[in-house]
Amino acid sequence: MLFHVRMNVNLPHDLPASDVAEILQKEKAYSQELQRNGTWRHIWRIAGQYANISIFDVADNEELHRLLSGLPLFKFMDIEVMPLLRHPSAVRDDDR
Amino acid sequence: MLFHVRMNVNLPHDLPASDVAEILQKEKAYSQELQRNGTWRHIWRIAGQYANISIFDVADNEELHRLLSGLPLFKFMDIEVMPLLRHPSAVRDDDR
Amino acid sequence: MLFHVRMNVNLPHDLPASDVAEILQKEKAYSQELQRNGTWRHIWRIAGQYANISIFDVADNEELHRLLSGLPLFKFMDIEVMPLLRHPSAVRDDDR
Amino acid sequence: MLFHVRMNVNLPHDLPASDVAEILQKEKAYSQELQRNGTWRHIWRIAGQYANISIFDVADNEELHRLLSGLPLFKFMDIEVMPLLRHPSAVRDDDR
Amino acid sequence: MLFHVRMNVNLPHDLPASDVAEILQKEKAYSQELQRNGTWRHIWRIAGQYANISIFDVADNEELHRLLSGLPLFKFMDIEVMPLLRHPSAVRDDDR
Amino acid sequence: MLFHVRMNVNLPHDLPASDVAEILQKEKAYSQELQRNGTWRHIWRIAGQYANISIFDVADNEELHRLLSGLPLFKFMDIEVMPLLRHPSAVRDDDR
Amino acid sequence: MLFHVRMNVNLPHDLPASDVAEILQKEKAYSQELQRNGTWRHIWRIAGQYANISIFDVADNEELHRLLSGLPLFKFMDIEVMPLLRHPSAVRDDDR
Amino acid sequence: MLFHVRMNVNLPHDLPASDVAEILQKEKAYSQELQRNGTWRHIWRIAGQYANISIFDVADNEELHRLLSGLPLFKFMDIEVMPLLRHPSAVRDDDR
Amino acid sequence: MLFHVRMNVNLPHDLPASDVAEILQKEKAYSQELQRNGTWRHIWRIAGQYANISIFDVADNEELHRLLSGLPLFKFMDIEVMPLLRHPSAVRDDDR
Amino acid sequence: MLFHVRMNVNLPHDLPASDVAEILQKEKAYSQELQRNGTWRHIWRIAGQYANISIFDVADNEELHRLLSGLPLFKFMDIEVMPLLRHPSAVRDDDR
Repeated sequence: MLFHVRMNVNLPHDLPASDVAEILQKEKAYSQELQRNGTWRHIWRIAGQYANISIFDVADNEELHRLLSGLPLFKFMDIEVMPLLRHPSAVRDDDR
Repeated sequence: MLFHVRMNVNLPHDLPASDVAEILQKEKAYSQELQRNGTWRHIWRIAGQYANISIFDVADNEELHRLLSGLPLFKFMDIEVMPLLRHPSAVRDDDR
Repeated sequence: MLFHVRMNVNLPHDLPASDVAEILQKEKAYSQELQRNGTWRHIWRIAGQYANISIFDVADNEELHRLLSGLPLFKFMDIEVMPLLRHPSAVRDDDR
Repeated sequence: MLFHVRMNVNLPHDLPASDVAEILQKEKAYSQELQRNGTWRHIWRIAGQYANISIFDVADNEELHRLLSGLPLFKFMDIEVMPLLRHPSAVRDDDR
Repeated sequence: MLFHVRMNVNLPHDLPASDVAEILQKEKAYSQELQRNGTWRHIWRIAGQYANISIFDVADNEELHRLLSGLPLFKFMDIEVMPLLRHPSAVRDDDR
Repeated sequence: MLFHVRMNVNLPHDLPASDVAEILQKEKAYSQELQRNGTWRHIWRIAGQYANISIFDVADNEELHRLLSGLPLFKFMDIEVMPLLRHPSAVRDDDR
Repeated sequence: MLFHVRMNVNLPHDLPASDVAEILQKEKAYSQELQRNGTWRHIWRIAGQYANISIFDVADNEELHRLLSGLPLFKFMDIEVMPLLRHPSAVRDDDR
Repeated sequence: MLFHVRMNVNLPHDLPASDVAEILQKEKAYSQELQRNGTWRHIWRIAGQYANISIFDVADNEELHRLLSGLPLFKFMDIEVMPLLRHPSAVRDDDR
Repeated sequence: MLFHVRMNVNLPHDLPASDVAEILQKEKAYSQELQRNGTWRHIWRIAGQYANISIFDVADNEELHRLLSGLPLFKFMDIEVMPLLRHPSAVRDDDR
Repeated sequence: MLFHVRMNVNLPHDLPASDVAEILQKEKAYSQELQRNGTWRHIWRIAGQYANISIFDVADNEELHRLLSGLPLFKFMDIEVMPLLRHPSAVRDDDR
């Protein structure tokens, strides 16, 4: 089941640089593990913004929230979620 | 080059049913041709809305606009465009 | 799987009264069937508005959209959807 | 009498972890007591957000405000309230 | 129990003048009856706008909605409702 | 002359508790004096919010601003003002 | 007593040209009479918009609303009102 | 050439009182000099807000920005600018 | 003197095709004449939208409004204007 | 390929003056190098605001984001991007 997720990152400007580096390193590892297991289907940077558009493929709302709230950057992000589904004009039965 | 496109459809309620049917048939054919040639990479319905999220893969802004403004539904849609690019945490070099 | 749905109804003021009556009768029957089979868990009127807050319990995003887009009033409504899940402070394991 | 309540939590990022833990523990106890006595009818997490949708069943506006302003997290939340009532299409006389 | 209600009137410009006159006459009679029985506590015009601020004193949400949805102008208005209660700094125990 | 005033209070979370207590005590005394002399006609709490709806009865814009800008909480509030007047459907000549 | 008024004009595109001409002629005469008697202190066009910024000098809210609601274009305008007063840094005691 | 300027002041609550006093004193002197030389044509306080509406009469956009960005309060203000011009219904050729 | 202008076109869907064609032809001729004489410095289409971003170089606000309000599409457009000036980091003294 | 970029600068008021000066010096050098090589085609100040409107001419979305995210002020700015293209009414084939 697919979900469209937009994440906007707002790091406080006075967060120590070493803390930021550590959080970002964890975030990258966390994201890449989910990408490799197929749960985090797509992740794109939005040009000019510290933000991304992602597509998640999960079993249900519970799993989606567990993954998102577990993000190391979660407390520094605004997240918007939209449930997606197959479009009637899609040429593929299973566009992910 | 990838673009994130959101299309919201607003059909006037007094448009004759036969006109609507004809436009929608053309729209579907137009969309499917672009999907088949790889330009319209993804198209998903947003749950509960007469709207879609699409990913376009085009040569430049000119091509993107030519494709979007050629949509049979163009005059009945609100369209928002965001340029995308590879995310630094992406595990794939070429996520489309 | 639960979804929070807000529906705002905007009937064109020049729709013939008999058309409105027919649509509303179908809408009521449609809604009550879904309520009886447990899919449309709750429906409440918002005081002072031609709008409702509803809770749907469906298998997935596909089913949710199929039900919503099948509403006789669908073309006259603005619909907003939010995926819900169990709250960690909930006293019930299965609050619906 | 039912009210729809949305609570968005905004914890300052520099609040000491022990303070946060203490507030959240109190918040959970407070919420669960109200859930058990039937006043806080439903509480759901919104996927991807530090926010919840709740349904309160209270005697009047005074009781609603007393309960909400007594929340241990009250000063860290944005709260929106909407009065609800039975929907004319509801199959149940008393949907709570 | 008090509610704050804002009503914005949007009459379609092509509504026949005689229809408008009839609706407004009914609206006035409807409003004045509720004012006289104490349910519609206050009604004020907002300067420069075809809008009013009103205070209703009703038994519950059901009664509030029944009164508002019965307004002859209901289908031509945007209505916003906020539940009110005694302010802790009020000098009167029962400010209506 | 009547004015509708909405005040939203935003106290910085790191303001010392004793400072808050002192400001709130002054605010209450200030408000009650104006209520007693008839200038601050009504004050209601909005359910679920640290905010109030008030009706002021003043000689002119100058007096209104002098009273509002003198509020001990003024620097911690967002204030919105709307000029009011007698509604043509009011049953009372002088509804305050 | 001064008020800041912004008027945005929205003429329906299908209003007959002769009707428009007649309304605009009346509007101009109405406005100029109020300007000449000193009530409508200033009127400026906003560049690029069918809108104006005006300053009214009236006895009270009642007079302001009577003048605005009597505008021939009133039903085709969105109007926003803000009460003004002497600024503490003004070099003139009576800046109008 | 006239410009409509709205200035909203947002002083950080933890700015030392002596700093605030010094800035405000400079601001007042700066404003009054411009008022006296005819550049800052009008300045009015908006009732209930730490904000003003001003009319500037300058040679061009460059001069307007030089004056505004030189305001001692500039870094603590949100400023909105709208270019104005003579209204076709104005009775005066040169309304400033 | 430069101005940034955004124009959004909203053609009513029931405008006869021949009327649209005539207006668009006039609009193009009007725009090109102003481009050729150097007043309309730049005009760009926004990808995916029936809208443009333009830069005007005019003597004053009066000229800007005269040009914009003379657009054949003026009554079908929403126009936003922002006064521009040389940026202190610009490498050119006269960037147009 | 052209992009329209709006940058709003929000410097924290408590940033040390020497830090600000250093960042602004780097920002200016960075911007001027890009202007000189033709990538940053235009940069204009918006009157009354700490903001600019810029036109970038880049090979693709990747290059645009690399340039913008490399801005010394990037973490203190809100940036909005819109893809542009040749307008069908443009008199020049290559308006940059």
